[in-house]
Amino acid sequence: MGATMIGLVKDKRAPGAVLMNVPVPECGIDEVLVRVKASSICGTDVHIYQWDAWAEKNVVTPNVFGHEFAGIVEEVGSRVTHVKRGDYISAEGHMVCGVCKACRTGNAHVCQHTRSFGITAPGCFADYAVVKATNVIHNEPDLPYELACLQDPLGNAVQTVLAGDIVGKSVLVVGTGPIGLMAVAVAKASGAGIVMAADINPYRLQLAERMGADYLINTRTVSMTEAVAEYTKGEGAEIILEMSGHPGAIQSAFESAAPAARVSLLGIPTQSVSLDLSKHIIFKGLRIEGITGRRMYQTWYQLKGLLNQRRIDLTPIITHRMALHDYEYGFDLMASGQCAKIIFNHDKKPVSVSLQGEETNHGQLEPVV
Amino acid sequence: MGATMIGLVKDKRAPGAVLMNVPVPECGIDEVLVRVKASSICGTDVHIYQWDAWAEKNVVTPNVFGHEFAGIVEEVGSRVTHVKRGDYISAEGHMVCGVCKACRTGNAHVCQHTRSFGITAPGCFADYAVVKATNVIHNEPDLPYELACLQDPLGNAVQTVLAGDIVGKSVLVVGTGPIGLMAVAVAKASGAGIVMAADINPYRLQLAERMGADYLINTRTVSMTEAVAEYTKGEGAEIILEMSGHPGAIQSAFESAAPAARVSLLGIPTQSVSLDLSKHIIFKGLRIEGITGRRMYQTWYQLKGLLNQRRIDLTPIITHRMALHDYEYGFDLMASGQCAKIIFNHDKKPVSVSLQGEETNHGQLEPVV
Amino acid sequence: MGATMIGLVKDKRAPGAVLMNVPVPECGIDEVLVRVKASSICGTDVHIYQWDAWAEKNVVTPNVFGHEFAGIVEEVGSRVTHVKRGDYISAEGHMVCGVCKACRTGNAHVCQHTRSFGITAPGCFADYAVVKATNVIHNEPDLPYELACLQDPLGNAVQTVLAGDIVGKSVLVVGTGPIGLMAVAVAKASGAGIVMAADINPYRLQLAERMGADYLINTRTVSMTEAVAEYTKGEGAEIILEMSGHPGAIQSAFESAAPAARVSLLGIPTQSVSLDLSKHIIFKGLRIEGITGRRMYQTWYQLKGLLNQRRIDLTPIITHRMALHDYEYGFDLMASGQCAKIIFNHDKKPVSVSLQGEETNHGQLEPVV
Amino acid sequence: MGATMIGLVKDKRAPGAVLMNVPVPECGIDEVLVRVKASSICGTDVHIYQWDAWAEKNVVTPNVFGHEFAGIVEEVGSRVTHVKRGDYISAEGHMVCGVCKACRTGNAHVCQHTRSFGITAPGCFADYAVVKATNVIHNEPDLPYELACLQDPLGNAVQTVLAGDIVGKSVLVVGTGPIGLMAVAVAKASGAGIVMAADINPYRLQLAERMGADYLINTRTVSMTEAVAEYTKGEGAEIILEMSGHPGAIQSAFESAAPAARVSLLGIPTQSVSLDLSKHIIFKGLRIEGITGRRMYQTWYQLKGLLNQRRIDLTPIITHRMALHDYEYGFDLMASGQCAKIIFNHDKKPVSVSLQGEETNHGQLEPVV
Repeated sequence: MGATMIGLVKDKRAPGAVLMNVPVPECGIDEVLVRVKASSICGTDVHIYQWDAWAEKNVVTPNVFGHEFAGIVEEVGSRVTHVKRGDYISAEGHMVCGVCKACRTGNAHVCQHTRSFGITAPGCFADYAVVKATNVIHNEPDLPYELACLQDPLGNAVQTVLAGDIVGKSVLVVGTGPIGLMAVAVAKASGAGIVMAADINPYRLQLAERMGADYLINTRTVSMTEAVAEYTKGEGAEIILEMSGHPGAIQSAFESAAPAARVSLLGIPTQSVSLDLSKHIIFKGLRIEGITGRRMYQTWYQLKGLLNQRRIDLTPIITHRMALHDYEYGFDLMASGQCAKIIFNHDKKPVSVSLQGEETNHGQLEPVV
Repeated sequence: MGATMIGLVKDKRAPGAVLMNVPVPECGIDEVLVRVKASSICGTDVHIYQWDAWAEKNVVTPNVFGHEFAGIVEEVGSRVTHVKRGDYISAEGHMVCGVCKACRTGNAHVCQHTRSFGITAPGCFADYAVVKATNVIHNEPDLPYELACLQDPLGNAVQTVLAGDIVGKSVLVVGTGPIGLMAVAVAKASGAGIVMAADINPYRLQLAERMGADYLINTRTVSMTEAVAEYTKGEGAEIILEMSGHPGAIQSAFESAAPAARVSLLGIPTQSVSLDLSKHIIFKGLRIEGITGRRMYQTWYQLKGLLNQRRIDLTPIITHRMALHDYEYGFDLMASGQCAKIIFNHDKKPVSVSLQGEETNHGQLEPVV
Repeated sequence: MGATMIGLVKDKRAPGAVLMNVPVPECGIDEVLVRVKASSICGTDVHIYQWDAWAEKNVVTPNVFGHEFAGIVEEVGSRVTHVKRGDYISAEGHMVCGVCKACRTGNAHVCQHTRSFGITAPGCFADYAVVKATNVIHNEPDLPYELACLQDPLGNAVQTVLAGDIVGKSVLVVGTGPIGLMAVAVAKASGAGIVMAADINPYRLQLAERMGADYLINTRTVSMTEAVAEYTKGEGAEIILEMSGHPGAIQSAFESAAPAARVSLLGIPTQSVSLDLSKHIIFKGLRIEGITGRRMYQTWYQLKGLLNQRRIDLTPIITHRMALHDYEYGFDLMASGQCAKIIFNHDKKPVSVSLQGEETNHGQLEPVV
Repeated sequence: MGATMIGLVKDKRAPGAVLMNVPVPECGIDEVLVRVKASSICGTDVHIYQWDAWAEKNVVTPNVFGHEFAGIVEEVGSRVTHVKRGDYISAEGHMVCGVCKACRTGNAHVCQHTRSFGITAPGCFADYAVVKATNVIHNEPDLPYELACLQDPLGNAVQTVLAGDIVGKSVLVVGTGPIGLMAVAVAKASGAGIVMAADINPYRLQLAERMGADYLINTRTVSMTEAVAEYTKGEGAEIILEMSGHPGAIQSAFESAAPAARVSLLGIPTQSVSLDLSKHIIFKGLRIEGITGRRMYQTWYQLKGLLNQRRIDLTPIITHRMALHDYEYGFDLMASGQCAKIIFNHDKKPVSVSLQGEETNHGQLEPVV
């Protein structure tokens, strides 16, 4: 008989999701209850919504999904001392065990006992969410909600960019989805030399330019390897940030690498990738870093420093803002590729601007009651 | 009976220097002869000019001094293949042995067999200079001479700033002489969080602000430690770049350090410094890096990346430009502290603007002939 | 009216300690109660026992002190899942806040909110002790109690040795107290080149030889710097592990450093130390690491690997074994310097071998009742 | 009409080689002429001898091949100052340009302008060899010739093992050819936790045990992944040293990796390898290092430290010793896999022990004259 709230629920192990009344989650003794103010759609949410093989294998149902958010603390558990009601927070989504070797040696982001906020545990596409107190990230008062909820994917970008030295080095960003776009900005703000961005989507390449890319490579029309060779005067890229997960792009990326280059792999290929290890990794002496999540919590401090000092501006990446009720429109946009980050403003009325500029109601309110 | 040129010569082991005709240096088989286009005065040159205890111990006389320069290659030795007549170059000033353990393990900058261009070997305050071919740094055609000759001290700043992670971290620059000013710009361009600059000289603190410092600390009037505590919300500075060489400032810098901070020491104290190792280094778990010269040659590639992509602009640091003949005026300015970098334009007539705005001839031409 | 136990209590803010009946500590919901099987005396315990300036400033009274131990879990709190009754454990003594920046970025060992087991919180010189479940270290069944309780100081040694590369490098251990002796063994087991040990105490230098030191330097009779120069063929030591805390030794250690050397500082000077920063740190390009505690918990995994694979043998360092009741004898021995590690066997009868070889009772049982 | 010597010449672009009289190479002004005392057969030499696709593409003919050696300096060029006649030396085989970005930034081992001693330039299977003075490695007087000539492959092993932290970590060596066997010893000497060795060759697994492997995995009979899981209690290997170049073994190696593991790839696959990047690299957050050659020259100093202090003993790996004239027997042995390192003793008469224990002459002396 507890309180209820509206939440976007992945209710069936099939495509789609439904906005419905669900109980407000209970706040445990070392947890925090948050009133969600803004959230954003991650590519992972699209997998959940569309229900692909990855989702079938990894996602719990029924569940409120969504994991990128910002909000105000409503209640704290009895043992929580460093967070208080009224605090403006976001949170790391990986809820780790804390006592395994990975957790105890600076590698909590690959803890094998991780529960994931919004994937295997209730998330933030709702009025309220519960997070572990250890995972709370305090936000600065002047950080807009819509930027604060982007810190989770920004953290992916930051870990990818900063997995090795960067100052003065040539950087190739392969794949300019939202995290790739953020990576362009982070690389520039961290002192990169030239920054090249490669994609097949002109819409997103244009955004890459706005984020500061020095060279755009439309791999639909030109060879990535040749373009990189040209822009680097034959040297190859010293840092490669792989964000596409596309086997062909990954192969081209390795071909484009300079001797002793560093390759950070973040994009998730859905199949095995065939690589010429001898030519492209061993004889060139490359270093490769597999990237997942965010370093807990070095990455958060790095991104906070960049955000607070205005070293990066993520505003151009926010291409759409809408009410949570308009989620179907949001997921359709994500599927189209004609967007970057879509923000759910949780205080907004369920009305948003259509493609034609008219106000329409995209949300389905009926299931809620 | 070889050709002669004009050179600024440290002729006696006493204060002063003299502009005179000297032989054009001979270019050895693995050396390069350069026509100097611009040079700049380093603090080290002031020590040589004023002849202090350090100079007495370390400087060879008679010698053409000066080591920061840019120029055009006039002639190359018979075994030189990667440099050719007409190339636009600068050069690393440390001429190292190349075969000791330090040289062979990435620490050539502390080779114990180093000869120093302009200090223990002929330098660049002259029409021509000879450098080792291995030490040549090629400049981009569009890099102005007066910026190219600043790469040597910029390299000091870059090595100091990048002796550890920096992205998102709070930085305290102690001492805003020319290298400190450069360090402010490099730190910002490399993704630093807040950048604080401390000095007793208001003229230079003002320049620090122009270079991007977020907070200025005039240690004549406020406590460095208290100011840092305030700006970092009690945490202390995560990175300290010590450029002053002043014992009291060094002590305050260590007091201002956050737990696990990194302290890069570049400024050269002329006496021993008493430090509370337990409190400020051991219990806080600090890391300290002694910095000298430039990493050969990683530092040069880092600074090139920053310069080429216009991540930093050193122009505000160039406070004076003059002919080499006006050297006395230049060294007087350096002694006054009312300047940052002074450029000798080697193509310029020996006339410069006086403090009163009138053109006067500060140079002494007589000794030349 | 709870259960009582025997504990060695620092009862007054003055020299000495007393063995007395005290309540068995209560086990909180995320804590673990341990039956202590063995403990050992740390140099810190000697400071507490003798009550010096450091103790006056940092130690809580009345308190059961002692922090190096091994034991069997008797009870676990209601929220503890990874430790169970009967487990054989030791524990990290730094109880940190877990939510500050240091804790969240791999620097928990310098958390400014640390409570220290046996110093500012009840410790292990007693029948039972309570530790935070997060701090528990599981021991292998075949690790003897007396070696298991040495893991805490071994961790100090491991962090000191491994604060940088070591394979093939010349190592100078300055100060061969127990941690210095352990450092000799860790350095050898980690692939060090030559290992030199310096001290003024012949008894301990002899132990250093047993632990594997290649060269012994009795600084009472020879110059540390000259000896190091001889053994390193003029290069100087590439790694210096400072364990003495003695100002003169620290100065000599810096003089003995090779260019680009790494200096790990663990020994705690009780006064400021005057250093020639220019000559010994800056121009040589040294790196200095302040060492405190153990990396939480990388250091523990490193030392476990060394212990489990028998890469190091600490047995020669255990010079005395006794009952806890014989504590006065133990602390007298520590004061004399004629020992290395002294083990309290908590199951042992209060009788131990006197210096004359007769069995005597060194403990004071009266205050217990 | 210069002096001649005996050399093992790859004369045709087809299988085989011939021992013949060739001119003693001339010593350039910055080169050194060495009287070869011992050399050893590398797997690369087998590729050259058997003439496979790699050889066709990379090897110069006609050429004296062989690159692992030790010898005595006979003559030095006019500009060489740090090597003198009579010095006992070996040499780094990569002759690099010294002025490209890779060379100037600590990555000379992947210089794209490398000439390789014994592959694209004359080598050491001869009475005399010429090496660049910069590449000379001085040997200690008491280091036997047959161990000194193993330093080149030992350097491969050392770079592979030390491409990241190792102390206390579990290590899996995949492929126990000579470099894999050396890696076992280097890992142990550098403080590794458990060391597992995997191969299909029982002869070599037996040698791995002699070199110190804690666990042997015959992948002909057991699953590598299951064996590693068992020996690491389900964690997986924290460090993987891939020495086999075999696609299936590489895949199993990645499957056997613990979260946050480091994988060093040295073995050269002759075809592309299909990898599940998502599962085995990205989600586990692995780091991969492509390894080629030796770090110039850090690796040499590391291996010297290990050799000089007798931290490793390579003697068990030397399974055969013979005269250079017996090269056909040597290459047949290499092809059989029933050997580890084969040493050519250049002072030895062309007679060696047959498999039946009788002395026979395996060499072909006729072509020499």
